[in-house]
Parts: sequence; structure tokens; C-alpha cells
Amino acid sequence: MRDHLTIIKVGGNVVEEEASLKSLLKDFSRIAGNKILVHGGGKTATTLSEKLGIETKKVEGRRITDAGTLKVVTMVYAGLVNKNIVAGLQALGNNAIGLTGADLDLIRASKRPVGEIDYGFVGDIKYINYQALNELLNDGAVPVIAPITHDGHGQLLNTNADTIASELAVALCFDYEVRLIYCFEKNGVLMDESNEHTLVQEINPELFEQLKKEGVVSGGMIPKLSTGFAALNRGVGVVVITNPAGISEGLRGTRLVLE
Amino acid sequence: MRDHLTIIKVGGNVVEEEASLKSLLKDFSRIAGNKILVHGGGKTATTLSEKLGIETKKVEGRRITDAGTLKVVTMVYAGLVNKNIVAGLQALGNNAIGLTGADLDLIRASKRPVGEIDYGFVGDIKYINYQALNELLNDGAVPVIAPITHDGHGQLLNTNADTIASELAVALCFDYEVRLIYCFEKNGVLMDESNEHTLVQEINPELFEQLKKEGVVSGGMIPKLSTGFAALNRGVGVVVITNPAGISEGLRGTRLVLE
Repeated sequence: MRDHLTIIKVGGNVVEEEASLKSLLKDFSRIAGNKILVHGGGKTATTLSEKLGIETKKVEGRRITDAGTLKVVTMVYAGLVNKNIVAGLQALGNNAIGLTGADLDLIRASKRPVGEIDYGFVGDIKYINYQALNELLNDGAVPVIAPITHDGHGQLLNTNADTIASELAVALCFDYEVRLIYCFEKNGVLMDESNEHTLVQEINPELFEQLKKEGVVSGGMIPKLSTGFAALNRGVGVVVITNPAGISEGLRGTRLVLE
Repeated sequence: MRDHLTIIKVGGNVVEEEASLKSLLKDFSRIAGNKILVHGGGKTATTLSEKLGIETKKVEGRRITDAGTLKVVTMVYAGLVNKNIVAGLQALGNNAIGLTGADLDLIRASKRPVGEIDYGFVGDIKYINYQALNELLNDGAVPVIAPITHDGHGQLLNTNADTIASELAVALCFDYEVRLIYCFEKNGVLMDESNEHTLVQEINPELFEQLKKEGVVSGGMIPKLSTGFAALNRGVGVVVITNPAGISEGLRGTRLVLE
């Protein structure tokens, strides 16, 4: 029987406010077995950009990454957010190691070709170095991954954290029974965003399309669901969208299913 | 016979200007065998602090690290500088991994007690996790270490990069034949700072004291020499101060000797 591996992608307000981060790290540290944390940090990056007079441009929720913005996200994601999570997990007895895709060549990407939109220094994933991740996990390390990748020619690139989590899950599901958990500030997919009691307990691609059309799911929920379904389709066993409390409470939240 | 290990501390202008960094990384990538790069990033940190309206205070060349400054150095050292070095080395075929003292609990420190001066979030090293470094080196990884440590209770700390390099050299010299190289923009210790031909080829503690009194060595050279002599005294085989070209040219520069 294969070992279990839990991959948690955490974003939204959870990782950027001290109280919610602290509580997330406690829940995360209690997960037994192999685990990987993938985080964002977009709000802090936007705040820092503002202070530095760098304009934040987004197209359909995706950040346009010019040279100045790349510096900001590298500082915020790989530096400030990543290392505070690592220090926090170490304090809780988890042997965390903070990494980007450049470290150990973990995630190689290519700069997105300029089409109608020039996303700038945004990377689309080419491959995951699952062997190196396997070695770290075998040594008992807990990888904490910032959404920065590289192109193998010295260029850092900004890559969506949901996509990274999904691709890691797919790359590692040959060796592990993988659970992929998108963790954010709400209970899961809600029929009414303002009412946490309207949780959708199970969602399949058909319902996703319907809710998208109806505008019930929108914004940051769309990449979670689409990368989540992609992971399920490519062999990942369990995909759930939940909040930090949901991690410790038997994975309540919205479970993605294919049928 | 023990394996060789080269530890290079690079700072000053070398690491923060694109052209000199590129040339350093080329020289560094050519070093055969086990190696570790320790870097600074103080100038970029000072520039970013200025832009953010955070005053940079120094006492005898050492940065006072208040909460805002700690954020800045974490972003600059562990994020911007570290990950650009890692991506650059990966492009040159070196399997670099960027780390702080918090990652894998590599360098545990304690916040410096407030004496006459309150240095703020500055950490004095308590121990080096040489086992974890050994495992990385055995796996063929090239650790690139940013001068940020942690206290084991979730607090990141700012620690002098010269001291980190020296302590790493001491901790690893039981398992390796260690060469410790302080690499900066000049040829080595110079009798006349403005004349690169006035290189001091060998320096012992007596000459160091004399040159310090005479003001020939001052500023950033003092911690290089004092941490360098400390490493020699504690079993490190070779300590040299040189510039990037000196690495590839058979370690010409200033060699530290005990007698």
C-alpha cells in the first residue's frame, strides 16, 4: 500500500493575517504523514507594490507580472511569507523547508507566450521534479512551496499557486495516495457566498459549469475548481475545498467528484 | 581521506550588481566538489528600506533590526537575492537550493540580549544542524544560504553573514576538509585600499591587530578577519579573503594564518 500524502494549498486571507495563519499552522502541523504546503501571498504583494509605486494590473484575476512586480512577488512569496511559515512550522515541531520551483530545480516553467495579453514574467509549468520532492519527503521534511518557478536559464517566473498544488498532486500520485486540499477562508463552495450554511458538499464538473454560468462560483474559486478537476482526472484520489478548521475536522468542505 | 568542502561568503557589491553577480556565479559553478554559498544583500535592503520610509540605523557597521527592517531583510536576503542566485546557479548546472537558518532548522539562534545597544531582531548563533547540511551535500545539492536565522519559537532573526559562513565552516570541518573563502570586490586585504597591488598575501592575528590599530583594516574587513581567525582556531584548514576572480585563479588573495 502506498503512503499517504496531503498537499494543502492555502491562500486568501488565511496566510496573510497573523491570527489565521497561526491557527492554520496548528491545524497543518497536526496532519500525520507526508505533507506539502503551497501558499500564495497576493494581498501582501499588492500592498508592497502600492508602497513602491508599482501599479498592480490584473486580467481576469491574474496578475500581470512586469519586472518590478516580479521582484515584489519574489520578495513577498519566497521571502517574507514563506520564511515566516517555515519558522512557524519549525516551532510546532514540523521540519519545514521553504522552497521555490528554482530550488533543486523543483518546478521548471516556460514564460507564457505573448498572445492577446502579455502576462509578463508568468510561467506555465513544464515539469515537476518529483524525485527531489520524494527525497525530501523520505527524509521527513515538510516542503513549503512559494509560487515562484524558473525557466532553467536563470529567469524566475510567477506561477499560479492553485496550479502548482494541482501539478504537484498529479506528479506525486504515482508514488503516494494524494489528498489535495484547497484551503481558504470559507467552508467550501457556497450557494450563497455570504452564508456559510449553504455549503455544496459535493461538486462534479457538470454542477461546476452550471454554477459558473449562474455566477454562483466566480473569481478565485474558478481556478481552484478547474485545477482541482484536472487533478482528479489525472489520478489524484481526493480533492477538497475547505477552510483551516476543515482540515482537522475530517475534511468537511466541498468534495470534488468526477460524476 | 575526507572530502573537500568549499564555503564561499560573498557580499559587498559582488552579489548585488547584475554583471558582477553573473561573473561570480560562473566562477562559483566551476568549483568542483561540495560547496556552499553564503550571501548578504545589505545594499539592496538599505535601498528598499529607504523606499518604504524605514530608517536604516547602524552601530559600528551592524544593522539595527527593528520589526520593519526584519521584514525588509527577510524579503531581500531570503527572497530576491537568494532566489536569483539559485536560478542563476541552476542555469549553470549547479543543483542549488536556497535556504535560511529556519529551513530544516539549519541555524538556530537566540535574540541578542539588550545591552547598551538594542540590536532588535538580531540573532546570535546557538547551533548549526550539520547533519541536515551533510545530507544535502551528499545528495549533490549546493546550499545557498541567506543570513536569516530563527529562534525555534517562530521568530526569524537577522544574523551576520560572515559569522554564518565561519560557523558553518567550523561545524562541518569534522566531516570535511573545509576551505572558507570571503569573497568581495577587492583582491584581499590591501595596505592601501585604493591600490589593488598592495595586497597582503598572508596575515596572522598579530598583524591583524597592528593593521587594525593603524586603521589599515577597518569597516567590513574586521568581521571577515575576526570570524576568519575564529574558524582557523577551531579547526578550519584554509581561510582566504579574495575577489571572485581569485576563486578560479588558485585562491590568490590574502591567506589567514595563525602564526
